[in-house]
Amino acid sequence: MRLSQGFVPTRKEDPSDAEVISHRLLIRAGYIRMLARGIYTFMPLGWRSVKKIEQIIREEMDASGALEVHMPGVQPAELWKESGRWEHYGSELLRFQDRKGADFCLGPTHEEVITDLVRNDVSSYKQLPLNLYQIQTKFRDEPRPRFGLMRGREFIMKDAYSFDLDEAGALKSYDIMFEAYHRICKRLGFEFRAVEADTGNIGGTRSHEFQVLADTGEDQIVSCPACNYTANVEKAEVQVDASARPADAQLGVMTKVETPAKRTIEEVSGFLDRRASQFIKTLIFMADLKPIAILVRGDHEANEIKIKSFLATHLGHNVEELRMASDAEVFEATRAPVGFAGPIGLKIPVYADWAINGLVNGVAGANEKDMHLVDVNHGRDFEVTAFGDLRLAREGDACGRCGGPFDAHRGIEVGHVFYLGTKYSDALNATVQDEEGKKRALVMGCYGIGVTRMLAAIVEQNHDENGIIWPMAVAPYHVVVMPMQTQDADVMEAANTIYRDLRAAGVEVALDDRDLRPGFKFKDADLIGFPLRITVGARGLKEGQVEFKARRDSENTMIAVAAIVDHVAGIVDEALR
Amino acid sequence: MRLSQGFVPTRKEDPSDAEVISHRLLIRAGYIRMLARGIYTFMPLGWRSVKKIEQIIREEMDASGALEVHMPGVQPAELWKESGRWEHYGSELLRFQDRKGADFCLGPTHEEVITDLVRNDVSSYKQLPLNLYQIQTKFRDEPRPRFGLMRGREFIMKDAYSFDLDEAGALKSYDIMFEAYHRICKRLGFEFRAVEADTGNIGGTRSHEFQVLADTGEDQIVSCPACNYTANVEKAEVQVDASARPADAQLGVMTKVETPAKRTIEEVSGFLDRRASQFIKTLIFMADLKPIAILVRGDHEANEIKIKSFLATHLGHNVEELRMASDAEVFEATRAPVGFAGPIGLKIPVYADWAINGLVNGVAGANEKDMHLVDVNHGRDFEVTAFGDLRLAREGDACGRCGGPFDAHRGIEVGHVFYLGTKYSDALNATVQDEEGKKRALVMGCYGIGVTRMLAAIVEQNHDENGIIWPMAVAPYHVVVMPMQTQDADVMEAANTIYRDLRAAGVEVALDDRDLRPGFKFKDADLIGFPLRITVGARGLKEGQVEFKARRDSENTMIAVAAIVDHVAGIVDEALR
Repeated sequence: MRLSQGFVPTRKEDPSDAEVISHRLLIRAGYIRMLARGIYTFMPLGWRSVKKIEQIIREEMDASGALEVHMPGVQPAELWKESGRWEHYGSELLRFQDRKGADFCLGPTHEEVITDLVRNDVSSYKQLPLNLYQIQTKFRDEPRPRFGLMRGREFIMKDAYSFDLDEAGALKSYDIMFEAYHRICKRLGFEFRAVEADTGNIGGTRSHEFQVLADTGEDQIVSCPACNYTANVEKAEVQVDASARPADAQLGVMTKVETPAKRTIEEVSGFLDRRASQFIKTLIFMADLKPIAILVRGDHEANEIKIKSFLATHLGHNVEELRMASDAEVFEATRAPVGFAGPIGLKIPVYADWAINGLVNGVAGANEKDMHLVDVNHGRDFEVTAFGDLRLAREGDACGRCGGPFDAHRGIEVGHVFYLGTKYSDALNATVQDEEGKKRALVMGCYGIGVTRMLAAIVEQNHDENGIIWPMAVAPYHVVVMPMQTQDADVMEAANTIYRDLRAAGVEVALDDRDLRPGFKFKDADLIGFPLRITVGARGLKEGQVEFKARRDSENTMIAVAAIVDHVAGIVDEALR
Repeated sequence: MRLSQGFVPTRKEDPSDAEVISHRLLIRAGYIRMLARGIYTFMPLGWRSVKKIEQIIREEMDASGALEVHMPGVQPAELWKESGRWEHYGSELLRFQDRKGADFCLGPTHEEVITDLVRNDVSSYKQLPLNLYQIQTKFRDEPRPRFGLMRGREFIMKDAYSFDLDEAGALKSYDIMFEAYHRICKRLGFEFRAVEADTGNIGGTRSHEFQVLADTGEDQIVSCPACNYTANVEKAEVQVDASARPADAQLGVMTKVETPAKRTIEEVSGFLDRRASQFIKTLIFMADLKPIAILVRGDHEANEIKIKSFLATHLGHNVEELRMASDAEVFEATRAPVGFAGPIGLKIPVYADWAINGLVNGVAGANEKDMHLVDVNHGRDFEVTAFGDLRLAREGDACGRCGGPFDAHRGIEVGHVFYLGTKYSDALNATVQDEEGKKRALVMGCYGIGVTRMLAAIVEQNHDENGIIWPMAVAPYHVVVMPMQTQDADVMEAANTIYRDLRAAGVEVALDDRDLRPGFKFKDADLIGFPLRITVGARGLKEGQVEFKARRDSENTMIAVAAIVDHVAGIVDEALR
C-alpha cells in the first residue's frame, strides 16, 4: 500500500471522549471513526487488523472441529418469547417492528436462533456432537457505551454453540473450546488469564472468562501464584476463616454512642477512632421481596453473586431477584434511617460473612437515628442465622483452594466459555433420539469472543507514548518503507525496489511515498505502529545501506540494500511461525 | 470435511413457498434455512460458497485500487435527514429508536455514512481519487420478500463509493469499477450482460446494471445483436417511428359505439373485433399532482421512467412525483369512470408515444361510461401536446441505436454501477480544496453487488433436474470421495487415503463416510452439487481402480488409484486458474 493512495488520516489531538489508551490511539492513528455513541466505522488499516484477528479465530475454530455458519442479525420475537428472554432481557435488547407490525429484535446473541436451527435439522444422536460458530455483527443497546471498542453497542463477535447428547459430551466440547481459546489468545500475543467465572442464573456449572490483563480493564480478577487458581472477584473463593473469636478474648460492655449524622463506615470510623476492620457492616437486601440482613466486615465488600449462590444452597431454591433494599424498606426492617442498621434486635434473617465470626468488640449501627453500638459481639449480643462466603475477594486474601495470598489484576474480558446445560433446549424443545430411540434434550454450551474488543485489548497491551506497537500477527502491514527525500530520484527508486521486492517475498508492506517532512512521517509511523521500519536516505544509500528499526526497539541498524529484503522477510516469517 | 461430522441436512421435499429453482435447491441441499420472511441463515456449505464469492469480489476490488472498510449497520437518523432520505426513502428503510429515544435506521445502503466519513477526513484534492468499499450485511424491509436469496430483506452486499475532484475523474473511477465488475462476473462463470440502466432521480448520467441471464430473473432487458446495445426495458431506447400516417390513408368517420361494461383493451378489442395495435390507450397520470394524459398503442406498455425523463426535457424541470391517477382523479380529468378515457375533448396536456403518430383509424375511449370511439385520427379528432418515446421496449422493437430488432432476455441484477455526481456531497457539504485552494464538492459514484443474490444466481445458471452443479470457483468443496461399502475396511482405507492425499494436494474435499445406502449418497452428492466425484468400490479396488465423474458429465471413467489424486488436482487447478 502506498500511503499517498491509502486512507490513513492520522490526528494529533486525542478525541475528547476517550478515556482509555486504545480508544485514543485507534482514533488518532486512523483505525476507527465514531458514527454514533458505541458505533464505529473501521477504516482500511483497522479493518485489515480485524480481518487478521477473525482469521486466527477461524483457523482455531475450524481446527477444533467447529463448523462456520452465518445467522441473521434481525431476529423474530417469537423465538425470544419461547425462551422467555423477550420479557427478561432488558433494554439492551433492541426491539422494533417491521413494516407489517411484526416484532423483531437486533440479535445481541444467538442462542434462540441456533437452537431453533438445530431442533429443525438435527434429530438423531448420530448427528452429534455438533459445534456451530459464526463471526458476526451484534447489537447491544448498552446504557453507557464507552472506551471506544471496549464497550460498544455494535460490535463483531465470534459466537459458537455446541450440542451434545449428554453432560459428559458437552463438557468435552467445553474443554475443546477452552483449549482453542487458549491457542487464539496465545497467537494474538495476549498476556491473559482463563478465569473461573460465575454462571449466573443459567443453571450451568462451568464458566471461564478469558481476561486480557490491563489496568484499564473493567473486570477485577484475583489469582493465586501458589496454585494458579484464578477467578473473577465475584466468583473467587476466599479461604473461610471459620475460627470463632479466641476463648480468652476480653469482651467489652456493649455501649450505645451518639454518632450525629455519621452514616458511612469512614465517617463513623474517624469519629469513634476505630479501624474499619472492626466494623460490622449491616446491609439490608430484598431476596424475592423479603428483607434479609447481610453482615460483612467494614473493610470488606458484599458480593451479590456469592450471596445469591449461598442463599440457593441455604434455602434449597434459587432466589429470582436479589437487590439492595430501598430507603423505605430499610426503615421498615430496621426502624431507622439508612446508615444506622445493625444486627441487634433485627426480626429478619441475618447472614454473616465468615470474617464476622472472628470479630471481637465490633462496631455496628444501633437501628436508631444518629446512634451506633461499640463492643458488639455475636452470640452474646445478637444471633447469626448462618455464616457463609459472602464477600468480594481482594488482593492478599487467602486463596480458597490453597490458602496462599491472592494477587489482584484488572482484566478485559475478550472471551467467555459457558456450559449451558439444557436451558435453551428445554425451553425450545430441542431434542434428539438417543441410541435406544428415547428423546433427550440437547446439552449445550456457548462460547463467545469479542473480536473488535480484542483489537482494543491488543492496543492496551502493545503501545508506548508514541503510539501502537502491533504484534506481527495482527499488524495491518508488517513493515513501512520510508524514503527520506521524496524528491530524490535515487532514493525513490531504491525505496520502490525494496517495496516491490518485499511484496514479492510475501511481506505486507506500506510505502510512505507522501511528500511530507521526514519528522512528520516518522511520527505517523510510530503512531500507526508498523512493527518494522526501513528508512531509505540519500546519505546511507551512498554507502549502499538503509536503516532498519523494529518499533519495539530503541536502536536502529544500518543494513546493506542487497540484504534488507531477506532480513525483513526472515523476521516476519519467524514472528508469524 | 467428513460428511458424518458435517452439518449438511438435505431434504427430499421442496419448500412450499419456493417459486424459483435456486430457492428450492439451496434449501433442499442444506445451504440455507429461513428464519423469517426474507431472512436466512447460511449453513456451513452455503457459507463456504458465500465466502468464496466475497473473496473473488475482494480480490478484484483490491486490484482496482479500492480500499476495504467496514461501516456500521445501525445508522443515526441525523445523516439521513441531512440527505433528505429520512423522509423520502419509504417503508423499506427500517426505522427505530434506541433506549434513549434517539432515531436510528438499519442501513439499506451507505451513501450518507460514507459521505460523512469522507467529509470529516478528506480535505484536499491530494487525497483523491478515493474508492472505499465494504462487504456488509444490509437490511431492506421489502414489501414482498421472495425467491429465497433473490429478494431478501437481510442480505450481504458489496458496496463501494468513489470520490473524485471532478466529473472526468469520477467517470474514470466509474470505468475502473465497470471493468472490475466484468472480471468478477467472468470469474464466477456468469452468462451476463452489462446493461444500460435508468439513473432515476439522482441526477447522474451514467448507470449500468450487471444482469445475469435467467428465465426466473425479475428484470426484463433487451439487446441488439447488431450493435450490442443492451438496456433494461425501462431505459432501452426504441427507434423512433416519427413518420405520420401515410398521406393517402383512408380516414374513416369517427363514430361512437356502445361498449357496455367493456373496459380493458382485451375486452373492447374482442367486442369490436379490432386488433389491440389499433387502440389508443389513454392513461391518466398525476405529475406533481397535475393530471396529464399519456397515449400509447394498445399493444404497448407505458414506461413511467421514460415519461419522467421526457417530461423533464419537455417541461424544463424534474417531476418529483409521477403516479397513476386515482379513480376519482381519472373521473375529474375525463368526466368518465376508469376504462373509458380517450384523448378527444380532454382539457389536460396530452403526450403521445411516437407509435401513435402513424396510427390510422384508431379506437379510443369516449370519456363517457360504456362508450368508445372508432376511426379516431389525431390532428383531425384531437391534438397531441407533444410526441415522445414513452413506452417499454420489447422483443422485435427496432434498436434505438442502429434500428436492428431487439432480442429480449430476463435477468437477475447482481451488480449496479452508478455515477452519482454531487447529489450527496452537496447535501452533506462534502468538499475538498482543489489545486488553487478553491472548495469543490466531491464528485461521487456508487457501486453495488448483491453477494448473497449472486449465490442464488449461480444456482439459477448451474443446475439440472438432480441438483446444483457448482462452478469450481465457488463450490463449497471441489470433490466428494464416496466409499460404496463403508463396512469394508479396504474400501474405507482407500477412501481415507485419497481424502488425505487430496487435502495435502490443496484440493478441498468432502468424504461421504456416512453409513448409508450408496443410492442415497449419490442422490445427495448430485443435489449438493460437488463438481467432481470419486467413487471407491470394492470391485474396482480389486483392479486397483476408482470411478471418476464430473457432475456436468453423464459419463464416468475408471482411473488407477495411484493416479486419481494427480488427475483431480490437475482438473481443479485448471478450473481455478
